[in-house]
Amino acid sequence: MIITLTTDFGLSDPFVGMMKGVILGIAPDVQIVDLTHEIRSYDIMEAAFLLNSSYGYFPEGTVHVVVVDPGVGSSRRPIAAAANRHTFVAPDNGVLSLILSAGSTGIPVHQITNQGFFRHPVSNTFHGRDIFAPVAAHLASGAPLESVGSRILDFVRKPIPRPRPSGENRLIGTVLRVDKFGNVVTNLRPGDLKPGFRIHASGFEIQRLCFAFSDVEPGELFAIEGSTGHIELALNQGSAAGKLNVGPGAEIEVETGHPNN
Amino acid sequence: MIITLTTDFGLSDPFVGMMKGVILGIAPDVQIVDLTHEIRSYDIMEAAFLLNSSYGYFPEGTVHVVVVDPGVGSSRRPIAAAANRHTFVAPDNGVLSLILSAGSTGIPVHQITNQGFFRHPVSNTFHGRDIFAPVAAHLASGAPLESVGSRILDFVRKPIPRPRPSGENRLIGTVLRVDKFGNVVTNLRPGDLKPGFRIHASGFEIQRLCFAFSDVEPGELFAIEGSTGHIELALNQGSAAGKLNVGPGAEIEVETGHPNN
Amino acid sequence: MIITLTTDFGLSDPFVGMMKGVILGIAPDVQIVDLTHEIRSYDIMEAAFLLNSSYGYFPEGTVHVVVVDPGVGSSRRPIAAAANRHTFVAPDNGVLSLILSAGSTGIPVHQITNQGFFRHPVSNTFHGRDIFAPVAAHLASGAPLESVGSRILDFVRKPIPRPRPSGENRLIGTVLRVDKFGNVVTNLRPGDLKPGFRIHASGFEIQRLCFAFSDVEPGELFAIEGSTGHIELALNQGSAAGKLNVGPGAEIEVETGHPNN
Repeated sequence: MIITLTTDFGLSDPFVGMMKGVILGIAPDVQIVDLTHEIRSYDIMEAAFLLNSSYGYFPEGTVHVVVVDPGVGSSRRPIAAAANRHTFVAPDNGVLSLILSAGSTGIPVHQITNQGFFRHPVSNTFHGRDIFAPVAAHLASGAPLESVGSRILDFVRKPIPRPRPSGENRLIGTVLRVDKFGNVVTNLRPGDLKPGFRIHASGFEIQRLCFAFSDVEPGELFAIEGSTGHIELALNQGSAAGKLNVGPGAEIEVETGHPNN
Repeated sequence: MIITLTTDFGLSDPFVGMMKGVILGIAPDVQIVDLTHEIRSYDIMEAAFLLNSSYGYFPEGTVHVVVVDPGVGSSRRPIAAAANRHTFVAPDNGVLSLILSAGSTGIPVHQITNQGFFRHPVSNTFHGRDIFAPVAAHLASGAPLESVGSRILDFVRKPIPRPRPSGENRLIGTVLRVDKFGNVVTNLRPGDLKPGFRIHASGFEIQRLCFAFSDVEPGELFAIEGSTGHIELALNQGSAAGKLNVGPGAEIEVETGHPNN
Repeated sequence: MIITLTTDFGLSDPFVGMMKGVILGIAPDVQIVDLTHEIRSYDIMEAAFLLNSSYGYFPEGTVHVVVVDPGVGSSRRPIAAAANRHTFVAPDNGVLSLILSAGSTGIPVHQITNQGFFRHPVSNTFHGRDIFAPVAAHLASGAPLESVGSRILDFVRKPIPRPRPSGENRLIGTVLRVDKFGNVVTNLRPGDLKPGFRIHASGFEIQRLCFAFSDVEPGELFAIEGSTGHIELALNQGSAAGKLNVGPGAEIEVETGHPNN
């Protein structure tokens, strides 16, 4: 059995290690995989996006724990959900929005209330260690989803930023994140760009959609379908984000081109 | 069996990976967990504090390896100790001070001298790979503590910074570390703060002890019992360390308040 | 079975996690060890050096995956090789140069063409996830090297920077990398330094070869045989790289001394 961890804890503190200790105390044979612990502090939508892009590469039955939890210790609920044969454990703050919106309304989401699964005493500041980790360990060990608590229907959904029209054959896209190489991941999909498209960002114009980084000379900006299926703005062996001076949340104007060109 | 690793090696170099290779060559089925590798270079007391805050979240029988080792290659001894049903492997430089001082004087501490457990040749600069990792693997595989070498009583203990009185109802506390979120972890305990307390730091005064980050408006400084049981100075969704401009070792003045208020 | 991963992906993105998910879907019982993911972006020779310094600390039979791959999506080939009872999976861009040059010319190198081992669809931008990870998982599960594709002889070898003579008893060495502590790892070997040697770097002169960091007072520059068998320029509890202001690729002048001194 596999448990993945996605947090904004970073790796300097022992928070992630503590969660793993709690998990292995309950489920000694589980494989724990770090998805990333470098989510920007409190950035629920970055975590939602990364989790949604990543969980499908794990085997069915994997339990995914997400702890980006600015509301820890408040009345926000902990939840567990089952979607596409994966299980998700997270605070009810919208971090599962993309998982839960992608499926049918029939996705079961349960409020976690079964204190028998918790580590006691439960800290007010670290539910990752005292609630999410042990609940995930119990689920990975075979506890049924219903055992965590009752099903709820009013879980939190955050609006997902989608490209929006801004005139005839025009869209406004949004930068979702910048990866380690400086590639600018947008919320555009390949189908949004038709022959003759132009992307306008920071005074630069991008007209080229490539299939591989190596198709392009170093220094030229281009668009490419990234490994998560989104359009990325890229620079072969350089940082497009640095050249364009854009970051998460920045808007990008797109002339979508003409399908009949 | 679980082995945890705590070092100041960082993750850019392959040092941690080499240690894991050596461990898995001896104990193929062990689970290795990184506690953190981002201890400040040579900061023995930071490692001592983090280990002491963390080991209890692992199952009994876990072997904890700490390699913060400015004296590597000198006459400083390698040691192994058993405390609270956990095993510890580290240089004899005080990094186990909190573990060893917390228990009774009956905690067995052994000097590691059994070269049959070492990886050869033993480098003068990397005992983590050649001594601590293989010894931990043998201990996790069932070798008794006595097999590493003879018991010693004169192991190194470093003084642990505790709050000190500075007048009637006044204490001087110390900042132990700053976590990834900017929370300022002090050596104060909740019992040090009585009704009417005031904490003075960098010209700011903190009078409020909260139970959850979310009890407070963004921007307000407050005190909170952190997940390790220490008092932390915090700012909801912001960096208290940044606002107070303090780091490890900084002193904090406390008027402790009056129990009869 | 063990699979190690060495990449320039960093840990902020979920790329490494995705590779692990794919591996565990094929080989659920494999132990995955991160060697490092902090290779400088696209720096093939840094990865080649670190891999060559590290793989020998793992048990025979380990599968080592290296993904530093500026040519992803181009015609550069994926390869797998067996050397010294270890298996290597990487792009054919020279990243295995030190492994392949160290052995005899009889080292088998195979082009990876067996699409039955790939994850489909194969992205043009992330062969780590879609080709290298699943091929490594199949090899770790017992698939023979020949099953990945045909043997090739014209794999890419990059020249390895070796010290070069620059006059009588003089060498020019090169800085390979700087480690986390600021130690300057050179391509010099202990045998290059004879009694009376002098190393000239950035206006400093180093005449002392020590056996342990602790042999030296803080603040003094010295040479030492590092844990990978290379000469390193070091400063006890300080950054030699900072003091010398050198980085990878910098040249160092060496008067090699006189064996009969």
